[in-house]
Amino acid sequence: MKDVNAILLISCPDSKGIVAQISNFIYRHDGNIVHAAQHTSKDDKSFFMRVEWELNGFALKREEIPAAFAPLADKLNMKWDLYFSDFVPRIAVFVSRHLHCLHDLILRRSMGEFNARIEAVISNHTDARELAQQFGIKFYHFPIDKDNKDRQEEKELKLLQDLNVDLVVLARYMQILTNKFLACYPYKVINIHHSFLPAFAGGNPYQQAYDRGVKIIGATGHYATEKLDEGPIIAQDVIKISHRDEVADIQMKGKDLERIVLARALRLHLENKVLVCGAKTIVFE
Amino acid sequence: MKDVNAILLISCPDSKGIVAQISNFIYRHDGNIVHAAQHTSKDDKSFFMRVEWELNGFALKREEIPAAFAPLADKLNMKWDLYFSDFVPRIAVFVSRHLHCLHDLILRRSMGEFNARIEAVISNHTDARELAQQFGIKFYHFPIDKDNKDRQEEKELKLLQDLNVDLVVLARYMQILTNKFLACYPYKVINIHHSFLPAFAGGNPYQQAYDRGVKIIGATGHYATEKLDEGPIIAQDVIKISHRDEVADIQMKGKDLERIVLARALRLHLENKVLVCGAKTIVFE
Amino acid sequence: MKDVNAILLISCPDSKGIVAQISNFIYRHDGNIVHAAQHTSKDDKSFFMRVEWELNGFALKREEIPAAFAPLADKLNMKWDLYFSDFVPRIAVFVSRHLHCLHDLILRRSMGEFNARIEAVISNHTDARELAQQFGIKFYHFPIDKDNKDRQEEKELKLLQDLNVDLVVLARYMQILTNKFLACYPYKVINIHHSFLPAFAGGNPYQQAYDRGVKIIGATGHYATEKLDEGPIIAQDVIKISHRDEVADIQMKGKDLERIVLARALRLHLENKVLVCGAKTIVFE
Amino acid sequence: MKDVNAILLISCPDSKGIVAQISNFIYRHDGNIVHAAQHTSKDDKSFFMRVEWELNGFALKREEIPAAFAPLADKLNMKWDLYFSDFVPRIAVFVSRHLHCLHDLILRRSMGEFNARIEAVISNHTDARELAQQFGIKFYHFPIDKDNKDRQEEKELKLLQDLNVDLVVLARYMQILTNKFLACYPYKVINIHHSFLPAFAGGNPYQQAYDRGVKIIGATGHYATEKLDEGPIIAQDVIKISHRDEVADIQMKGKDLERIVLARALRLHLENKVLVCGAKTIVFE
Repeated sequence: MKDVNAILLISCPDSKGIVAQISNFIYRHDGNIVHAAQHTSKDDKSFFMRVEWELNGFALKREEIPAAFAPLADKLNMKWDLYFSDFVPRIAVFVSRHLHCLHDLILRRSMGEFNARIEAVISNHTDARELAQQFGIKFYHFPIDKDNKDRQEEKELKLLQDLNVDLVVLARYMQILTNKFLACYPYKVINIHHSFLPAFAGGNPYQQAYDRGVKIIGATGHYATEKLDEGPIIAQDVIKISHRDEVADIQMKGKDLERIVLARALRLHLENKVLVCGAKTIVFE
Repeated sequence: MKDVNAILLISCPDSKGIVAQISNFIYRHDGNIVHAAQHTSKDDKSFFMRVEWELNGFALKREEIPAAFAPLADKLNMKWDLYFSDFVPRIAVFVSRHLHCLHDLILRRSMGEFNARIEAVISNHTDARELAQQFGIKFYHFPIDKDNKDRQEEKELKLLQDLNVDLVVLARYMQILTNKFLACYPYKVINIHHSFLPAFAGGNPYQQAYDRGVKIIGATGHYATEKLDEGPIIAQDVIKISHRDEVADIQMKGKDLERIVLARALRLHLENKVLVCGAKTIVFE
Repeated sequence: MKDVNAILLISCPDSKGIVAQISNFIYRHDGNIVHAAQHTSKDDKSFFMRVEWELNGFALKREEIPAAFAPLADKLNMKWDLYFSDFVPRIAVFVSRHLHCLHDLILRRSMGEFNARIEAVISNHTDARELAQQFGIKFYHFPIDKDNKDRQEEKELKLLQDLNVDLVVLARYMQILTNKFLACYPYKVINIHHSFLPAFAGGNPYQQAYDRGVKIIGATGHYATEKLDEGPIIAQDVIKISHRDEVADIQMKGKDLERIVLARALRLHLENKVLVCGAKTIVFE
Repeated sequence: MKDVNAILLISCPDSKGIVAQISNFIYRHDGNIVHAAQHTSKDDKSFFMRVEWELNGFALKREEIPAAFAPLADKLNMKWDLYFSDFVPRIAVFVSRHLHCLHDLILRRSMGEFNARIEAVISNHTDARELAQQFGIKFYHFPIDKDNKDRQEEKELKLLQDLNVDLVVLARYMQILTNKFLACYPYKVINIHHSFLPAFAGGNPYQQAYDRGVKIIGATGHYATEKLDEGPIIAQDVIKISHRDEVADIQMKGKDLERIVLARALRLHLENKVLVCGAKTIVFE
């Protein structure tokens, strides 16, 4: 159990002594806190906390923690999730024809930037097949037209279940997922949108940016939710452009942004640093 | 005439030999080009150029240049403007209650960053009176309510004419100017909008940004035109925020942006580096 | 005592249960923590914490806190400082001939960005006199030549004591303070250096940047210490430049950076968010 | 010859009429200029220009251009280079054990971001072998120890000649090339240094950055020259870090920078947008 940490993500109504009671719980069982961060939302008097401690030396076995923590959680009316740093989530990457984000995720995975396993590449096209297979990742092709969407999504969901997928990453997947699909993976679908949301939501944002004559473009990593492009934002970044940039130049500059922002959003999620609070996120960087 | 430069801003249909013919015109009269930049818009086959040369040694007197240049301009079907670097435009700054942009403009003016003269501060409130007067600038108060707007604007326009104002700067002026006003100063009214347009157009953009949970905020310097917040963008910049930033924090961070972006947009305009092309700008930085 | 917070800045050897014991101390006396952040330096097994709680409802009077906290502090071998959010520090601003940072500090002060009082402007030149007096701040002139430096610094120190100055801000002060002076204000002298340290330490950094042909320039806000330009860094920022930027352009761009970075460093210090750890800082933003 | 452009990179002593004479040369032969940019260095009265025009419709064949241009070039005492946009340079990528930059170059090449051919991957280690071969690129292993460096470099040079390599990219190659090697490829060796030069030149810059406690790190793409880390800078970029970033975190953040900055520097070079001027570059973006 050496070097493994436990992580609690907590949200509850604000009250006095929350930090003390949570840190006491860990201290009482001989835990050594390595990171702790908290936030109080004044809007709705909510308290959020992320606390990470070493399992090494901790008096409770990992499977004993939930039962031991439950009384305090109940008393403070918490929503809470417990994670362990040695858990390796299984990811399915959805992609259409642009492969740069997929390529980037594969590179980062191979460099050890992510503690995750890319279990499958799923696409409505076949462009990604060769790349996936070059790196030994299974590729699944679900072509989608106006008539078969629900049927194909059901097959995709079945596949995700069979593969025990924990997280779906939309790495420039140009199909809109149905609410039914999203309901199966609440806050477990991360999308990269190639604009600085809420500017240029919807299709072809680089063309929109060009037409509007903005001097900066952006990319947004967010949880996909029912309302397209309105899910809680995890990460954003921007880059300058000028009148000399044609749409193709903007797309090329944007690709760098998309890769970086998607990777950042994904890493924050995988490190259990993101708490969703309504339409927004708390990111404990 | 030492150290004075002439500047031509040109737009015309694209064709072969434009650069050659323009630079020949200058060379033929013994002019020394110190800066030249051009751009071709592929969308509509338009050509844009900014060329700056030394009057010192130039064979034509400044008042002779227009007549000498006109034949070439006509031949190439140009829209063109001629400026001289020793011209000191007269600016009127419109402001409401937030004074940071006004304060910043005064500072930059005193440091010599702008070659311009702040002729008047005009406001629908009186908050700016003391600051303006501290620095010897005339202050004019035009209170505006729902009934008197047109009447007050007429007085403002009269004042601007009396003062020979060349350029209007809206330095956080919270009233919407009428089309009639704007028509008197086409592309001569520069506004700072406190968001990264087109995101969060309209009122209270920092509150909007907070509610949406974006991770970056921005500011936009643009020409004010009939459609509010849709004028050609001159400059934009952004800064990161996080869930820890309350609306007041976002406002404070935004103030730095507003000051910098407004100053940048204004300086580009004063240096005759901005050409308007439909809803967009060409900025020859 | 409404709305006043107490802030503890703590550093001590790392051990289990520190967060629990500190938060218990506050909870036991009915305190409501509004912010808490901690950091463990793996290099030397040190623990750092900033905790802020409401005095309103707290069982101890502010003057009773030190004695009540001392036993825990001793047990954990802490270095600690206690602050109250209603304390208004008295600042002396040292400046030479460039006034943009001073101007900026005055503006921010008047907008309420800083909870501090600019008690004096001190200069080896007289350029700042008018500006200071325009805003009702006392101006003191201590001309410095190669022979009188120690004598003048003694007078300055005497003045700072008479004025009960808590913090010295070097807002483009071009004289090097002696170690004797700095020893009187340990980590209470904040300097703005107009480069991205450690690049271009020493004199004339913008010229150095120009000569080297860098594509980005920076500014650094740091505590002044005995080794010039090697004090702990509080804040840095950068801006892009190009071959088109002459030294004068670089200076102008740099001025914006200097103002923003100095203000950021100062605000972090005034909000008691900076802990010094050897040659480095922990900044609890 | 459709869609192929000719590009002239020119430097010469400044004088009147250079732009006119060069653009006349092109116009006289029916050329259509698509981009033109110029710069005058006030330091040494030098003039720099990049001009690009369409070969389609140009009256001279590409092989006739040098002879036709030579008289003007001689008259104005120019150094000049002529390029054609359909030329596909052959690149050798040198790499040691960190593969992210190599991986990135391969990705960008496959996306068509570069108009170049990666002819060989050359390394003093074998880590890159598999990646290179996965993408069908020849891999060459030249192990280097303290005794064999000159001998191995000679073999490398021989290989580069055999492969007709036009450009060498040091994509995190941890050996220092000898002056003899560099003399064979003047301004044809592009290196990525993982710091914001001139800060943290030499080895292990991320450790240096960590030890100094800077709040921003950078990366620098530059031509490799005799003086290590002092070659003309083509591109730089930065990213923020904090006290929470351990050296490993800094390295991870830095990898993104290195990839982007190396790609930007390489693309600017491949698009013939970089002119070297002493220790600096003119970059016609």
